[in-house]
Amino acid sequence: MEFVGKLKERSIDGIPGLYVIITQDADSNQVLMQAYANKEAVLKTVETGLAHYYSTSRHKIWLKGESSGNTQKIIEILVDCDADALIYKVEQKTGACHKGFESCFYRTIKGGDFVENAKPVFDPKKVY
Amino acid sequence: MEFVGKLKERSIDGIPGLYVIITQDADSNQVLMQAYANKEAVLKTVETGLAHYYSTSRHKIWLKGESSGNTQKIIEILVDCDADALIYKVEQKTGACHKGFESCFYRTIKGGDFVENAKPVFDPKKVY
Repeated sequence: MEFVGKLKERSIDGIPGLYVIITQDADSNQVLMQAYANKEAVLKTVETGLAHYYSTSRHKIWLKGESSGNTQKIIEILVDCDADALIYKVEQKTGACHKGFESCFYRTIKGGDFVENAKPVFDPKKVY
Repeated sequence: MEFVGKLKERSIDGIPGLYVIITQDADSNQVLMQAYANKEAVLKTVETGLAHYYSTSRHKIWLKGESSGNTQKIIEILVDCDADALIYKVEQKTGACHKGFESCFYRTIKGGDFVENAKPVFDPKKVY
């Protein structure tokens, strides 16, 4: 896995060794979520074919869907010009957002405030 | 601009007060680039209708396209569930990447290494 050594690490809120991850629906190109990963999380993602991240609040690697079942099957991984950000292109089970929406970006900025632009696809109370 | 006070700031490489920005082509939904913005850059983006960012290397706000002319006209701005990441949906002039590609994500990870997945759309030597 030669590419991992070429990635450029950033520190987020004082936590070193992280890359920005953008997760996109492989079919529609909708951005589903944005999170972080470290080397180990990226390697697990490549090895298992399922999206793994590093939680900056829980300070550990997580398999997306480990509690909800809403896993993300990896179709492709892209890297940007300065190699500090990756795109996981995925097949998302049910929905990505812990608030019940398909995408975490379920709000638009309109008239100076947040306005919802989508309807929930599952009930988070039943899932988490 | 009530929404700005609701955004959650992160520190990136020790620089406080930043949000992750994902820039997407408003038509195709292709992700063009990932960068950061602070409050002032987001406000300038909303006020001018042109994408502004905060450069973590030059430590200042920049108007995308200020040297290349490859500006980004804002069509919509989305915000995620924890309000620390924004999507700028834009009309991109020419190409977003300083390496001459339409998108900064012009490489796929394949066989453990980076492989180019696109052709340049302009000559960066003539533009920068």
